[in-house]
Amino acid sequence: MDPRVRDHAEVIADHSVSIEKGDRVEILAPTVAEDLAVALYEKIGECGAKPSLSMRSPRAKRAFLRSCDADDIDLPDHSLAALEETDVVIIIKGSENTAETSDVPTEKVAAQARAHAPIQQERMGKRWVGTQFPASGDAQLAEMSTEAYEEFVYGAVNKDWDQQRKHQQQMVEILDSADEVRIVSGDTTDLTMSVSGMKTVNDYGEKNLPGGEVFTAPVPDSVEGEVLFDKPLVRQGSIVENVWLEFEDGEVVDFSAEKNEEVLAGVLDTDEGARRLGELGIGMNRDIDRFTYNMLFDEKMGDTIHLAVGKAIEQTVPEGQPLNESATHIDMIVDMSEDSFIEVDGEIVQRNGTFRFEDGFEG
Amino acid sequence: MDPRVRDHAEVIADHSVSIEKGDRVEILAPTVAEDLAVALYEKIGECGAKPSLSMRSPRAKRAFLRSCDADDIDLPDHSLAALEETDVVIIIKGSENTAETSDVPTEKVAAQARAHAPIQQERMGKRWVGTQFPASGDAQLAEMSTEAYEEFVYGAVNKDWDQQRKHQQQMVEILDSADEVRIVSGDTTDLTMSVSGMKTVNDYGEKNLPGGEVFTAPVPDSVEGEVLFDKPLVRQGSIVENVWLEFEDGEVVDFSAEKNEEVLAGVLDTDEGARRLGELGIGMNRDIDRFTYNMLFDEKMGDTIHLAVGKAIEQTVPEGQPLNESATHIDMIVDMSEDSFIEVDGEIVQRNGTFRFEDGFEG
Repeated sequence: MDPRVRDHAEVIADHSVSIEKGDRVEILAPTVAEDLAVALYEKIGECGAKPSLSMRSPRAKRAFLRSCDADDIDLPDHSLAALEETDVVIIIKGSENTAETSDVPTEKVAAQARAHAPIQQERMGKRWVGTQFPASGDAQLAEMSTEAYEEFVYGAVNKDWDQQRKHQQQMVEILDSADEVRIVSGDTTDLTMSVSGMKTVNDYGEKNLPGGEVFTAPVPDSVEGEVLFDKPLVRQGSIVENVWLEFEDGEVVDFSAEKNEEVLAGVLDTDEGARRLGELGIGMNRDIDRFTYNMLFDEKMGDTIHLAVGKAIEQTVPEGQPLNESATHIDMIVDMSEDSFIEVDGEIVQRNGTFRFEDGFEG
Repeated sequence: MDPRVRDHAEVIADHSVSIEKGDRVEILAPTVAEDLAVALYEKIGECGAKPSLSMRSPRAKRAFLRSCDADDIDLPDHSLAALEETDVVIIIKGSENTAETSDVPTEKVAAQARAHAPIQQERMGKRWVGTQFPASGDAQLAEMSTEAYEEFVYGAVNKDWDQQRKHQQQMVEILDSADEVRIVSGDTTDLTMSVSGMKTVNDYGEKNLPGGEVFTAPVPDSVEGEVLFDKPLVRQGSIVENVWLEFEDGEVVDFSAEKNEEVLAGVLDTDEGARRLGELGIGMNRDIDRFTYNMLFDEKMGDTIHLAVGKAIEQTVPEGQPLNESATHIDMIVDMSEDSFIEVDGEIVQRNGTFRFEDGFEG
């Protein structure tokens, strides 16, 4: 077995979810990631914990959703019953074909997501992590050879997370005490928002592996200006390019996209909250140095920020502060590597991707 | 997908476990059998039932058992909780390497079997089936090419089970009203036993797929004579050849084997019931025409009978009849194709593999 797979299992077990003796651990893995499941079983054995292994099969999901009657889609209560007795959930992504469910009617996908919502909710109350196995389909989506993609994934995942946490903490402290944040990139993005009273979270590889971002919630009504997301948005198999949004009083008042604009319109029309921002995130994982069409990685890329329309993450909104509600949460990315800066309360804290606490910063 | 896989899924769903709308179905499948899981998901979708998919991974099992402390092996109660809310269990076997757990200490395998006993017991109370996917490792064990092994497996599995049931019912009726059964083969096997008061079960592909045997329980104290099992016994990776047992008053009083005799001794020493017979089975699936070192198939082979030392199957022992108890149940096979006969209450019912209700029978 590739020794990097064992390293990955060690990061998951010891860092992300801290498996302890007696823990009941559920692993969800696609067949292509069996190696990582094996390495995790080895770690779980060492820990004196109790594993179970579910197979994630997009092919099976497709077969089921195509053959079933939409009205029959229901909660698999045996899966929920298992989860209720589970302490730790490890979700492994990895595809031999990322388009495997591309010919499933979207309304059935949505119906299943609604029916499975109690499972999703129960899972979020556990110690959980979502991570990636470097499979051929993901490599293809990233336009990389499988071997180069393996290098990329393990570089982003198997790292010193304590050092990363400390690095990111510098940005957490800046944002946590901030009132106003301004994002400027070229002449296409100039957006201001208040983060006053909100909490900034340091993501250092616990629930997401790789981690590598800090994120907070904008005050919903405070967002003003325009933003061009120059990294594409992948949504239900469609690539939406150059999404442009204009905000007034926190709300999207105008929008456009160069390709698949109707997909963007669909997102914004989900509900009222889908036209407001729920997240401001700043990518800080410098081992993620390219865009791979995989949000688990893309949103943590160095030299980028991301904004999500839709639901705010509860951790970032203290009791008593306004929380943007929505059925959706869609992240989109702005490249900050050139002709860009982040300003906090009038002071520039990042220019062209370099933070003020990093070497080479030019205020 | 190989159309025979879809046929197999149809036999499982429609015949073996009769999946109905709303059923909560758990599938256990090795990665190599993902095709069959996909075909089953398609059927389950058509039925309006609710699937879940667990990955059977001998590699993960090995990694866990080698790394864990034997004292920490415990019941995974999250797996049991799922099962308690499950209606149907489909267990798919299939190995790329049938020796995958050969370097796991046997005492840990035994400790896990004991810890998992409540899961096993709960499963037996459901509608369940155990079946086979024709994987390369199983083909190798059978000394067959993978393609020839596929032919063999699908020939035995995808058949007209109603016709098979009727064929077997003729033998059920003979045994059900019988008192004494005598098995003679060459000059090495001459065994008599009473089956008086016991019930004969017709196995036509429900809990086992392939099915294809009829079986009953000998009255424990009634077995007299000697038997040479001329098909090898595979036990914990060891092949035990030419097992010979001598019975008096139902008990093994002498035994030998040509290879790995100590493994046989270990079986017989399990407990008191392990020295008595728990089952007499008669193989009647004529599409199983060769020995493949896989009991799911071997015991149903035409022209064979099998006897199990150890625990009797409860279905075969009516209330009030003596039930042989044991922690073990080990089947062993006698070739009846030449110089052999089965006698029931003094009448020959099978000679050289041909039943008296078949063409070519020579009483």
